[in-house]
Amino acid sequence: MEIAFEKSGGLVPAIIQDEATGDVLMLGFMNAESFELTRRTGEVVFFSRSRNKLWKKGESSGHVLKVADVCVDCDADALLIRVHPVGPGVCHEGYRSCFFRSLNDKGAPRVIAERTFSPGAVYARAKFPSANEAK
Amino acid sequence: MEIAFEKSGGLVPAIIQDEATGDVLMLGFMNAESFELTRRTGEVVFFSRSRNKLWKKGESSGHVLKVADVCVDCDADALLIRVHPVGPGVCHEGYRSCFFRSLNDKGAPRVIAERTFSPGAVYARAKFPSANEAK
Repeated sequence: MEIAFEKSGGLVPAIIQDEATGDVLMLGFMNAESFELTRRTGEVVFFSRSRNKLWKKGESSGHVLKVADVCVDCDADALLIRVHPVGPGVCHEGYRSCFFRSLNDKGAPRVIAERTFSPGAVYARAKFPSANEAK
Repeated sequence: MEIAFEKSGGLVPAIIQDEATGDVLMLGFMNAESFELTRRTGEVVFFSRSRNKLWKKGESSGHVLKVADVCVDCDADALLIRVHPVGPGVCHEGYRSCFFRSLNDKGAPRVIAERTFSPGAVYARAKFPSANEAK
């Protein structure tokens, strides 16, 4: 089945959901190549819009995302990838999920999760600390 | 808190998750106006990329999405909106979730959900059947 990469400039959004808990962990974008790599290797590879290159999630932190299941939506222009996350969290700010803030009625953010790791420690020990990790 | 609409041409992806079950129901895009309307009315309003206009989810089907909670990611360029969905499903093909197909090793789709309503019946009885419903 064809994914509609060309419909939106070569990239489709990929929702990453924890297969065990149902929590939404993050959203990234994939082009055809990163999608193919994700499926072939069984670990999530995005395409970084800011760096304009492939971005293997966990390449510096070791917090890779092991693919459990890949779903596609009705229009084939969005992906839902259920994963088994390796490590304490996916967010470069030290949380399990990048969606760690809720907005109140006035639009003010409130942190609704606890830090699960220290970003400084994780990225400092990486051999090639990469801005990629910050999306 | 500012959402980074301008970072990606005025639109950010909004993941819609069923607050009760944790199921991811769909992904749409929002511009600043649709986001403001969503927050003010408590019901999800997207911006349709294909029609280039605001798109109130459920405007013809009645299957509106009542907002339970709005979360924002670390980069403020993606939204996670937890909802109480009204009606039997959000997908114009008659499923609870737009992500009703899983891809197997060869990339072939397999339907993993059951139809919960007949799209023909729902959209035929709408006063103004709208292609918008098809995203």
